[in-house]
Amino acid sequence: MDSRDITSILTDTVGKLSEGEALGMLFHRHSAGDIGPSGKALHRIVELARAILFPGYYGNTRVDGQTIAYHIGVNVEELYSLMAQQIEAGLAHAADEPKEWLEQQAKERAAKFVSKLPELRRTLATDVEAAYNGDPAATSKGEIIYCYPAIRAIANYRIAHELLLLGVPLIPRIITEMAHSETGIDIHPGAKIGNYFTIDHGTGVVIGETCIIGNNVKLYQGVTLGAKSFPLDEKGNPIKGIARHPIIGDNVIIYSNATILGRITIGQGAVVGGNIWVTEDVEPGARIVQRK
Amino acid sequence: MDSRDITSILTDTVGKLSEGEALGMLFHRHSAGDIGPSGKALHRIVELARAILFPGYYGNTRVDGQTIAYHIGVNVEELYSLMAQQIEAGLAHAADEPKEWLEQQAKERAAKFVSKLPELRRTLATDVEAAYNGDPAATSKGEIIYCYPAIRAIANYRIAHELLLLGVPLIPRIITEMAHSETGIDIHPGAKIGNYFTIDHGTGVVIGETCIIGNNVKLYQGVTLGAKSFPLDEKGNPIKGIARHPIIGDNVIIYSNATILGRITIGQGAVVGGNIWVTEDVEPGARIVQRK
Amino acid sequence: MDSRDITSILTDTVGKLSEGEALGMLFHRHSAGDIGPSGKALHRIVELARAILFPGYYGNTRVDGQTIAYHIGVNVEELYSLMAQQIEAGLAHAADEPKEWLEQQAKERAAKFVSKLPELRRTLATDVEAAYNGDPAATSKGEIIYCYPAIRAIANYRIAHELLLLGVPLIPRIITEMAHSETGIDIHPGAKIGNYFTIDHGTGVVIGETCIIGNNVKLYQGVTLGAKSFPLDEKGNPIKGIARHPIIGDNVIIYSNATILGRITIGQGAVVGGNIWVTEDVEPGARIVQRK
Amino acid sequence: MDSRDITSILTDTVGKLSEGEALGMLFHRHSAGDIGPSGKALHRIVELARAILFPGYYGNTRVDGQTIAYHIGVNVEELYSLMAQQIEAGLAHAADEPKEWLEQQAKERAAKFVSKLPELRRTLATDVEAAYNGDPAATSKGEIIYCYPAIRAIANYRIAHELLLLGVPLIPRIITEMAHSETGIDIHPGAKIGNYFTIDHGTGVVIGETCIIGNNVKLYQGVTLGAKSFPLDEKGNPIKGIARHPIIGDNVIIYSNATILGRITIGQGAVVGGNIWVTEDVEPGARIVQRK
Amino acid sequence: MDSRDITSILTDTVGKLSEGEALGMLFHRHSAGDIGPSGKALHRIVELARAILFPGYYGNTRVDGQTIAYHIGVNVEELYSLMAQQIEAGLAHAADEPKEWLEQQAKERAAKFVSKLPELRRTLATDVEAAYNGDPAATSKGEIIYCYPAIRAIANYRIAHELLLLGVPLIPRIITEMAHSETGIDIHPGAKIGNYFTIDHGTGVVIGETCIIGNNVKLYQGVTLGAKSFPLDEKGNPIKGIARHPIIGDNVIIYSNATILGRITIGQGAVVGGNIWVTEDVEPGARIVQRK
Amino acid sequence: MDSRDITSILTDTVGKLSEGEALGMLFHRHSAGDIGPSGKALHRIVELARAILFPGYYGNTRVDGQTIAYHIGVNVEELYSLMAQQIEAGLAHAADEPKEWLEQQAKERAAKFVSKLPELRRTLATDVEAAYNGDPAATSKGEIIYCYPAIRAIANYRIAHELLLLGVPLIPRIITEMAHSETGIDIHPGAKIGNYFTIDHGTGVVIGETCIIGNNVKLYQGVTLGAKSFPLDEKGNPIKGIARHPIIGDNVIIYSNATILGRITIGQGAVVGGNIWVTEDVEPGARIVQRK
Repeated sequence: MDSRDITSILTDTVGKLSEGEALGMLFHRHSAGDIGPSGKALHRIVELARAILFPGYYGNTRVDGQTIAYHIGVNVEELYSLMAQQIEAGLAHAADEPKEWLEQQAKERAAKFVSKLPELRRTLATDVEAAYNGDPAATSKGEIIYCYPAIRAIANYRIAHELLLLGVPLIPRIITEMAHSETGIDIHPGAKIGNYFTIDHGTGVVIGETCIIGNNVKLYQGVTLGAKSFPLDEKGNPIKGIARHPIIGDNVIIYSNATILGRITIGQGAVVGGNIWVTEDVEPGARIVQRK
Repeated sequence: MDSRDITSILTDTVGKLSEGEALGMLFHRHSAGDIGPSGKALHRIVELARAILFPGYYGNTRVDGQTIAYHIGVNVEELYSLMAQQIEAGLAHAADEPKEWLEQQAKERAAKFVSKLPELRRTLATDVEAAYNGDPAATSKGEIIYCYPAIRAIANYRIAHELLLLGVPLIPRIITEMAHSETGIDIHPGAKIGNYFTIDHGTGVVIGETCIIGNNVKLYQGVTLGAKSFPLDEKGNPIKGIARHPIIGDNVIIYSNATILGRITIGQGAVVGGNIWVTEDVEPGARIVQRK
Repeated sequence: MDSRDITSILTDTVGKLSEGEALGMLFHRHSAGDIGPSGKALHRIVELARAILFPGYYGNTRVDGQTIAYHIGVNVEELYSLMAQQIEAGLAHAADEPKEWLEQQAKERAAKFVSKLPELRRTLATDVEAAYNGDPAATSKGEIIYCYPAIRAIANYRIAHELLLLGVPLIPRIITEMAHSETGIDIHPGAKIGNYFTIDHGTGVVIGETCIIGNNVKLYQGVTLGAKSFPLDEKGNPIKGIARHPIIGDNVIIYSNATILGRITIGQGAVVGGNIWVTEDVEPGARIVQRK
Repeated sequence: MDSRDITSILTDTVGKLSEGEALGMLFHRHSAGDIGPSGKALHRIVELARAILFPGYYGNTRVDGQTIAYHIGVNVEELYSLMAQQIEAGLAHAADEPKEWLEQQAKERAAKFVSKLPELRRTLATDVEAAYNGDPAATSKGEIIYCYPAIRAIANYRIAHELLLLGVPLIPRIITEMAHSETGIDIHPGAKIGNYFTIDHGTGVVIGETCIIGNNVKLYQGVTLGAKSFPLDEKGNPIKGIARHPIIGDNVIIYSNATILGRITIGQGAVVGGNIWVTEDVEPGARIVQRK
Repeated sequence: MDSRDITSILTDTVGKLSEGEALGMLFHRHSAGDIGPSGKALHRIVELARAILFPGYYGNTRVDGQTIAYHIGVNVEELYSLMAQQIEAGLAHAADEPKEWLEQQAKERAAKFVSKLPELRRTLATDVEAAYNGDPAATSKGEIIYCYPAIRAIANYRIAHELLLLGVPLIPRIITEMAHSETGIDIHPGAKIGNYFTIDHGTGVVIGETCIIGNNVKLYQGVTLGAKSFPLDEKGNPIKGIARHPIIGDNVIIYSNATILGRITIGQGAVVGGNIWVTEDVEPGARIVQRK
Repeated sequence: MDSRDITSILTDTVGKLSEGEALGMLFHRHSAGDIGPSGKALHRIVELARAILFPGYYGNTRVDGQTIAYHIGVNVEELYSLMAQQIEAGLAHAADEPKEWLEQQAKERAAKFVSKLPELRRTLATDVEAAYNGDPAATSKGEIIYCYPAIRAIANYRIAHELLLLGVPLIPRIITEMAHSETGIDIHPGAKIGNYFTIDHGTGVVIGETCIIGNNVKLYQGVTLGAKSFPLDEKGNPIKGIARHPIIGDNVIIYSNATILGRITIGQGAVVGGNIWVTEDVEPGARIVQRK
């Protein structure tokens, strides 16, 4: 095979890969001026959100009380601007609306998202507290914020959940999947989760789209809050949007690798032991464990 | 300890770390002109492959039908060139051949790999379809391609598997480990996997070297398709290359955290429940679950 | 909502986010000149350590026997300098000492850390050997070093453990969490682990703070060596520093997804089967498995 | 001065610098969504233009005859897209038009500019030939293209001149000033310059806005083709747009540091010696030199 | 010459280059913790200063009146911090003082420098006005700020001059040389220059250390304001600090390539023609030109 | 013009730009595996050379006497490797030799170049001394090395001249043009220049290919050492390689903007005044000046 043969292979393959039919399946045709969601922009958005929510820990770490407003100001402005862009990309992906509408909607939703940041910070403060109180190995809250994967996964989830509530398509899921990749914790942005939520270690945790989780709940690594099965429509496709994941009451603890499936309820204050498989309701205050 | 003491410690340590004996164990001595595999180049290869296989989703997302061939052309050329380089590094690592032979071989195998890309795209289109049909939370195929870790892990696996079939050492494994790090899904490039393959959530999935998986199979997070044990040779070392992982039939579903070990067969259409430990054949169509 | 409304929302939100009270919870106020730990610097430290410990594999891969000392010299110097900076950040975070003391301490501890590198390399060589001997799919030690997540996780752990022994706060934990994110393997820097240690696949492994692990131990993916429960002080907070994780004897093998909890002892040479839950001592040489 | 005093100085100064009046003079207030010209984008535009005009010299230098169209295609597309953006910035700076108009105009003019590239390449080929033929130190045309500042300055000028003809404000001048900074050659984009134009060494050359230069003209370093004086309007401001720079006939040579001022004509084939000051017409074929 | 010979040449040369004597001449030995001036940091300082002084033109160009204070705040803080570092490097280079003194001095002088920024902006506004009024080719003040090399050279000079007045060694000269490289205009930071100063085209302009330039002065390209000769001390070395460059009165114009040497005075309102050599005083209002 | 028209313009233009004929003139066709010279690599080479020749000033500025050899070692190795690559590119450009010959030659010449570095440093030390002694505004040798453009231009020239002596095509000229762009000083690599050479300010200096300059020569800005005219061959092309530039004796000073043309001799110790035009020999010790 000489250099000419190789060039032929390359150009033939380019031809095959560029044909309409070959593209058909996995090619996203953009309309003019339309852009797709950008992984790089979303990474930056998450960085900015962390710098705004945990100033002095993330971002420019040298901020002090006098100059903090400048940094938050600049970060909020950049976050708004990137978020508007990404929301527009998400909206364009989901709907065939005129560019003006997309732009205006994207800006409004980005601004509304920004207005939720103070509340998000208050909620995340409760999550940090829960992680600190729940782990004898933690030596300071700083350690929690700097190192604990749970905080990063929960922060991304809380951001993504707000975006979902604002009707933003696609983007929320990309944001939670970024945390999934970083931490091994997979929380669907559609789940509803209360305050003081924590996850120890975290790798392998799955929290499904229609879960409802109360306040002060603690999960360990490998816990699945999943669907048992899902009804199909007449064409054999899964029916979207049906409540199919567990409801977890306040003050529940679920130990490592437990699997809880279906629209069942784990009552307030219950403790679910590790490595078990739960498909039925658990009484408030109950303790269920693996049989030896 | 003053600044002079510290300098002494540093230079002494450098001396110790650079001695022949100290290096002996963990030092890869390259012959002149020989290069090692490059994580950075392989990351770029994966990026390029994604941009070629899923145009409009990855890479320059603004491509349209008119100009797509330019982009695919440039990406294919860069992919070919980096791939030839990395294949050469892999061959050099495994065999002591003259540089000319290595170069020529690397170019041919890289060109052959490129010629497989249209087929790889067709297969990946079936995987995207399987993921979409199997998840009620998925709102569009775009969401699958942008967010689902399974697609990234399976794409890397399919690339790596082609390279393995072309006799490329070392590189395939690095490529699947890159996906393992990104997604928590660990697929050995030696496994054989059919069309319409999907993995839900995915963290913790392990698919061993000699697995054979049919068409339309679905796994959930934490599933292990592993070896039960492996025979040792007379020196006590594991014997390489023995078939020791499961065979999974068409249309099988395996739920989360199930562990399936050894050269057993899970028959067509079987359903394996979560959190169980399977070391014996399962009949076609059977449903096996954890005992309560 | 016009452009003026949006600007109002942004500036109002910046105001709310910058108020003393809002900051109170999650704001790390630095004293003048004080810096926080830097994720970027710590990533570079890990890169440098890998290049020093595995020359020819990581870092500039073209090193040969003649010029290796230059590369190790430059890398050691940069590692020392970044490490001193990060140790200072860790010390400043934990204690309110004068800057001179912090700087001097940081330099001494960084130099002491550097002096441990030759020994660290010797230990890691045993881990590489254990991984190679324990996996029939491994075709060369190079493959182990280039691809196996276990080596990256164990290297980070061994670095972090040395720093912990030198009394460095915060930094060791960040370093092991970086490996956790990269590999899904979560080893607390406080654990004590012998030679010839290996972990197969690795995703989901958790090794707690007070674990003691002997020589030649092998774990599979999803294994938890955790705490069963932890005593609270009179205020209901967990008491820090109590031995609460397992002791694993020499030559033990623990299969995938096994969960071993509490200050129990798994005797020498024992084999623990997959997916089981162990909360009591296991005899030396015993084999325990999941009941079917 | 303690740390508190310094913070006061900084915050006071920020206040002063942000006040309306202080900003008044040197602050460019953008309307919403409006962006300024970007030095970075314009640098990239020049890089792309060089790669398109001189393929194999600039840009990805490995192109061959088979794959050149992919590279030119991708570069042209990126050039178009950045150019449209920058033209929009230029138009927005100069005129207060609605965003839709600006966008549409910018796209059309960028496309027209692109359509001029083949002709630009033909003209630049004559400039390369002139430089090669005129310099005994030049060993190949490749050397001219890779090294000669004249080629870079003339290429930027020819690009900028086309943009000026398309009515693009601001951007042309920035592009010629980029070449001025790189080469010391200052050609106003408004000048008209024929084929086979070359400048030897070049530093210090100035070619004014209303110059007209014939074919096959050669200048040496330090030559000024400037205005002698310019009439003021009744308010004492210079009147814009009056022809005030020299006309240089075909086949003229002007030696180093000569200064030619005013709307005079240097006739065809004339030779102007170095270090002289010319403010009156020069006959065709004349040779004028400094008096000793 | 085989690969071994080449390695010998390299290692021998490294040895020769690292010997004390060889280093002696051109090696700057730093004391511990001492750093040299950083070209990269100084480039960033100039970027930041431009963004602060000309907001909306340089730096993030999208600033508007509402959020400008955030941007100026963040830029001022970064400028202060980098400037303090570089001033410390300059002081350390010039004097052998304890680190605490260096640090404290550097911070104070950096803060004082910052406090001069509002006044610097006012002065630069007059320079922009002068450039605009003096050039019929200029179509807007924006064009002046975006493109004119004079503005960049004068801005760097004015910054450097303030630093010189604050007693900062080395750094001012590096800053003016950065502009020299960018624009071909070489202004010594020691020169004293009034308001409404402008330079047309600029390449080749030299303004010496002890020049004094009045208000509303205009220079063209290639003008030298230099020293005629300089007295030597008894050892034959030039005596530093003697006034040896021209004094230029208010409202003077000096045309291209004029050379004005020695401590002479060009009287108010004088006009000096191009390409001439002036070594004696010029009367106020005089016009001197090259003899034909 | 709608989006479809624009796409047509783009694709048509790509077609025209990629046709054989259009490419013919300005397209460098590479043979397989052949690369062109890389501006980026050459910039890095210059950076490395500066770090090796002036340690503690350029490159990692924190080096001290203990660890300097590591830094020089690593820099020399990288310099060698990049230089071999670039020399190969230069040789490939100039001659049609087999790849093996090119590679071997490139390596040998790169090694020979490296072996000249100690001598280059000794010569540059004399240039630094000359600059320091000749400028009353210089406050330290550090200032000379950090700021003076002459040192950067002369260093590039001395590097390029060594490469020229080693028979390297193309690359030397690119290296001196890089300095030309940075400093406005244009020294042809073919010129021969003695020790203790300095240039004050420097913008606009031109030193031609066949110049011979003695020891202890000083030039000011704008000086041209050029060719008066050059003989043409029978085809009207300039004859290459004829001695056509001046010979400058030891201890000569040439003031600003003087132009010295042709193969004349400026005798030892002569002083040439500014702004004059010299085309005949000048006696040793003479002082020639512009007539008033």
